[in-house]
Amino acid sequence: MIIVLKSGVSEREVADVERRITAMGYRPHTIRGELRTVIGAIGDDRGKERLRSLESLETVESVTPILQPFKLASREVRSANSVVQVGNVGIGGRKIVVMAGPCSVESREQVLEVATRVKAAGAAVLRGGAFKPRTSPYAFQGLEEEGLKLLAEARRETGLPIITEVMEPDKVDVVAEHADVLQIGARNVQNFSLLRKVGAVGKPVLLKRGMSTSIQEWLLSAEYVLSGGNPNVILCERGIRTFETSTRFTLDLNAVPVLKKLTHLPVVVDPSHGTGHWEYVESMAMAAVAAGADGLLIEVHPRPEEAMSDGPQSLKPDRFAALMTRVARVARAVDRDA
Amino acid sequence: MIIVLKSGVSEREVADVERRITAMGYRPHTIRGELRTVIGAIGDDRGKERLRSLESLETVESVTPILQPFKLASREVRSANSVVQVGNVGIGGRKIVVMAGPCSVESREQVLEVATRVKAAGAAVLRGGAFKPRTSPYAFQGLEEEGLKLLAEARRETGLPIITEVMEPDKVDVVAEHADVLQIGARNVQNFSLLRKVGAVGKPVLLKRGMSTSIQEWLLSAEYVLSGGNPNVILCERGIRTFETSTRFTLDLNAVPVLKKLTHLPVVVDPSHGTGHWEYVESMAMAAVAAGADGLLIEVHPRPEEAMSDGPQSLKPDRFAALMTRVARVARAVDRDA
Amino acid sequence: MIIVLKSGVSEREVADVERRITAMGYRPHTIRGELRTVIGAIGDDRGKERLRSLESLETVESVTPILQPFKLASREVRSANSVVQVGNVGIGGRKIVVMAGPCSVESREQVLEVATRVKAAGAAVLRGGAFKPRTSPYAFQGLEEEGLKLLAEARRETGLPIITEVMEPDKVDVVAEHADVLQIGARNVQNFSLLRKVGAVGKPVLLKRGMSTSIQEWLLSAEYVLSGGNPNVILCERGIRTFETSTRFTLDLNAVPVLKKLTHLPVVVDPSHGTGHWEYVESMAMAAVAAGADGLLIEVHPRPEEAMSDGPQSLKPDRFAALMTRVARVARAVDRDA
Amino acid sequence: MIIVLKSGVSEREVADVERRITAMGYRPHTIRGELRTVIGAIGDDRGKERLRSLESLETVESVTPILQPFKLASREVRSANSVVQVGNVGIGGRKIVVMAGPCSVESREQVLEVATRVKAAGAAVLRGGAFKPRTSPYAFQGLEEEGLKLLAEARRETGLPIITEVMEPDKVDVVAEHADVLQIGARNVQNFSLLRKVGAVGKPVLLKRGMSTSIQEWLLSAEYVLSGGNPNVILCERGIRTFETSTRFTLDLNAVPVLKKLTHLPVVVDPSHGTGHWEYVESMAMAAVAAGADGLLIEVHPRPEEAMSDGPQSLKPDRFAALMTRVARVARAVDRDA
Repeated sequence: MIIVLKSGVSEREVADVERRITAMGYRPHTIRGELRTVIGAIGDDRGKERLRSLESLETVESVTPILQPFKLASREVRSANSVVQVGNVGIGGRKIVVMAGPCSVESREQVLEVATRVKAAGAAVLRGGAFKPRTSPYAFQGLEEEGLKLLAEARRETGLPIITEVMEPDKVDVVAEHADVLQIGARNVQNFSLLRKVGAVGKPVLLKRGMSTSIQEWLLSAEYVLSGGNPNVILCERGIRTFETSTRFTLDLNAVPVLKKLTHLPVVVDPSHGTGHWEYVESMAMAAVAAGADGLLIEVHPRPEEAMSDGPQSLKPDRFAALMTRVARVARAVDRDA
Repeated sequence: MIIVLKSGVSEREVADVERRITAMGYRPHTIRGELRTVIGAIGDDRGKERLRSLESLETVESVTPILQPFKLASREVRSANSVVQVGNVGIGGRKIVVMAGPCSVESREQVLEVATRVKAAGAAVLRGGAFKPRTSPYAFQGLEEEGLKLLAEARRETGLPIITEVMEPDKVDVVAEHADVLQIGARNVQNFSLLRKVGAVGKPVLLKRGMSTSIQEWLLSAEYVLSGGNPNVILCERGIRTFETSTRFTLDLNAVPVLKKLTHLPVVVDPSHGTGHWEYVESMAMAAVAAGADGLLIEVHPRPEEAMSDGPQSLKPDRFAALMTRVARVARAVDRDA
Repeated sequence: MIIVLKSGVSEREVADVERRITAMGYRPHTIRGELRTVIGAIGDDRGKERLRSLESLETVESVTPILQPFKLASREVRSANSVVQVGNVGIGGRKIVVMAGPCSVESREQVLEVATRVKAAGAAVLRGGAFKPRTSPYAFQGLEEEGLKLLAEARRETGLPIITEVMEPDKVDVVAEHADVLQIGARNVQNFSLLRKVGAVGKPVLLKRGMSTSIQEWLLSAEYVLSGGNPNVILCERGIRTFETSTRFTLDLNAVPVLKKLTHLPVVVDPSHGTGHWEYVESMAMAAVAAGADGLLIEVHPRPEEAMSDGPQSLKPDRFAALMTRVARVARAVDRDA
Repeated sequence: MIIVLKSGVSEREVADVERRITAMGYRPHTIRGELRTVIGAIGDDRGKERLRSLESLETVESVTPILQPFKLASREVRSANSVVQVGNVGIGGRKIVVMAGPCSVESREQVLEVATRVKAAGAAVLRGGAFKPRTSPYAFQGLEEEGLKLLAEARRETGLPIITEVMEPDKVDVVAEHADVLQIGARNVQNFSLLRKVGAVGKPVLLKRGMSTSIQEWLLSAEYVLSGGNPNVILCERGIRTFETSTRFTLDLNAVPVLKKLTHLPVVVDPSHGTGHWEYVESMAMAAVAAGADGLLIEVHPRPEEAMSDGPQSLKPDRFAALMTRVARVARAVDRDA
């Protein structure tokens, strides 16, 4: 931590701050500049948010951490890329892994049709929502456990592993029973009870970024799962909230190289939520792969105009197949397999 | 809903969209403009997000709702202000209700000292965190049930009703047993399982705005609680996330008059989180009351520089007492009691 | 500046960075922590952005400035509040100064009617746009010099000093000839050529915050004017751009106490642009004064529904008079004159 | 325009709004829904912001435009892509055009060295700043006209056309004398005087998006240039301002497909400013091309650690050459030439 003192503090006041730093278990190292005195607090400051409380002293101007606050997620702890295994598929390796399917599981016919079509087009994982987080209490809330069973049936039919969202700690066990990957949605990225619970199961966890979660906070959420004992965390960029309204969210592809620098965890991108409009999904899917993403999460629906949710951003199966062909070309151009 | 068609659509395509609107249970009313054809879908579109899926048709340019999507929270359903009763205190009436106390309950001495001091200064409710949502898994996570008991003891000592946060559905019952108001934190504003659960208990619920939640989404979250059968919802503005870094969040006081127009629910403001620095809390507390807020939520700690959490934004008891005096003057200037 | 080195740098690499710091005229002071080596660059780093280029070294993780980069605008250079004199009116003193008038000067009748009405209600300065920055080239662009003359006539009739916007360096002289205060609009807050030009005239300058300008950048824009030799700068918060769409902008009242801490310059608030809706203007005007603002800038139009620009946020004269009465009560509650 | 009336308006009030719409030259078409009456104002509403003033009526809830407000920039006016010719280079055609060079022209040696190196690596245009918009008045402000001459010399040496920024109307002629493309910087995107002035010269104009400019506002700024008679406008996405601080800005690549849908103008991307860190530039350059950009703007400096400005985001010539090779592979994967 770097503690900057206000201008005009006395030697006694400097000594008081030094004493407090020592009392918290750090070693103070004071630099007297021309205009300010600055104290470095030497010691591992990760997770030691308590030092920040010094900012409430009238003699202190600001307290700034030096280290990134996460540990297990960090490249410094593990320099090689982590590969999370989902069935036969490794996420984070050479292959670009595409997870596709409907926003909501709506019926047996729907989910089987989509599963067959996305598999034929080259998707490696089937996505589909059974428990749905909906902004309005009056909107369709998902088929719940019935939806999980339909997804499991689609897996039996197609062999595709499945990913689906879990929204509360109490449902983790039942979802983990049916799903191959547990998805934590954007609205739950700081639902710490849920993160702890999925940290205690062995299944891979796909952790979506919240719509206003900084990359640092997101990695701290991943740290909840990792420190709970579950190393199988996949990060998913899905768009952040900005002032721009011509898209539903602003897909932050900068996050891909930033994450690749900071963490060993695999990174996938969801261009469906990240744009909110089917017309933009293909372009942003290609961009994500070019930026270095390890995979994609894409919404596909046989009849988007009748979808119970997220119709505007869903692709028809034919368009999805065309996207897969184009994505594969970009993947090869960046030395990845598709 | 207003459905704008793309330019150049044929009469047959217009008829197709009209047919789909009818099939969804609405009455289409088509306006042929100079450059665009627009169809109004007549019917109650609140919560009927499904109409939006028409946006995925290639003939449709955009779909725009006309009505605010919430019902029970709306001024149209109830024009008079709701007053939520907490012990003897009514929130939403003439009196400005101040809820104050430490971010985290840290010890018996700490919470009793703060409770006594804030009561003496005029606070009407004691706040304190027992279950703490912390960004880092390595940070202090609260005293949990022990903290609830200390809060209950502080209530016995001072007579102040208490407000404390609940973070997961499973804990709602135990928190409701001890607390007078259940606080839903910013990170859980779209934790719909939790919202449903607190909608099923009778206790008042203080619902904080999420850091990137629009006012419309926030009222839909309130609607989850209201439609669950619990009418006692208090809204709390606590700052949104913007590009500005000189404060921790940007306190959106515009939200106060906007909410007063849209909803009958009481509105309180948290200037401690909304600024993140104790030096700015008093100014923004006064501003909130002048803007029309019904109450305040303020962090007070006897020794902020040693606080386990949120020290930089906590007031010492003396400063809090000074704030109460100044807030009271502003309250009277806007015809409120303090 | 604090330069944080990457983990694992060698002694030779540390020495290389120290050498570069010395070569740039600073004194390096190195702290070896447990996990990182940190070098303080001792010397006045204000405006010395060049040090930041060290961040491009492969051995450097980050470069963080210690001091705020502005000088003349800073409280450290001048601790007492500056009062900017406009005619007989001092802005930044005990009196809350209200500047009111139409968005655009549209006709002689309109501007004279508004001037008379706002003066009667207690406004101290007349605002009105002659040169209008309009988002669309097809929108009304203002009456230009004819508008300036109408404003000057309104001053003669009412005795109110006038404030009007100047949009380009070439027009500064003609606007300064007619106006008492030169307004720099939000879109020109980083139009450095214009800032330099108004720094070279003696007239007071009201500098609006840009819609995405940080407080630090805003004060650096003020520094352009101050360092040009013109000490008469008034800062005007007018709302920033965020994700929230229920208001036109998000009025950042946090900026008021932040500025009062950082700078001696007077601070006024524009609740008309800051909300974009006339219904919210009165609440936010009162909040601004309670937060510590020195004045207000408010749009008033006799027939807002026929206004050439900004009708939705303009008050009718009667409503403005009511606002003035309510604002005066809040002003007295915070020990200001109105 | 769609005008939504408040609930409970009387027939007389509806008639009053209809009358006003007619008086403004539009044809009202009224739809009576179950809960609201809605009036469509038929007629070309582009640039007719004045209709919005109806929102200030107490009977009106909201006014929403139907059409995008720009005309000449629109795909509806011109469906084929525009190709802007710069010397022998066409921007907006099959070829990905890379413009590279230093942030600031610092010396003859520097600019000639960079010019030679970027040409060898395949850049088609040389960029370099002579007039520099700097946040601080104390920072290096550019070599001004001397810088223009050095750029012209580099053109003679290498044959590369040059792009450089112009900051004020008075300098447009001198910059146009030396430059092949006039760059309008992010901070001047709504400097309407400057836009009008460059609209009156024939030279190509590269118009950067402002850091908080919506895509719609940006196209209206382009419309200023186009409606001035200059059809040679190139749009440049360079990152928007969001809450995320791990990058300098958030590069909004969503803007590429959105622009490709809305406008015929060429679109280039600046990953140097869009990330602010050299380590992320290559990834985002590739992503931009995959998303459909027509070109790139990249900062290259022989010794970034000694740069007078923007060192942290500048590439060394070797890294730039490596980037060009990788970008070319992505370009071919999306059927573009490099």
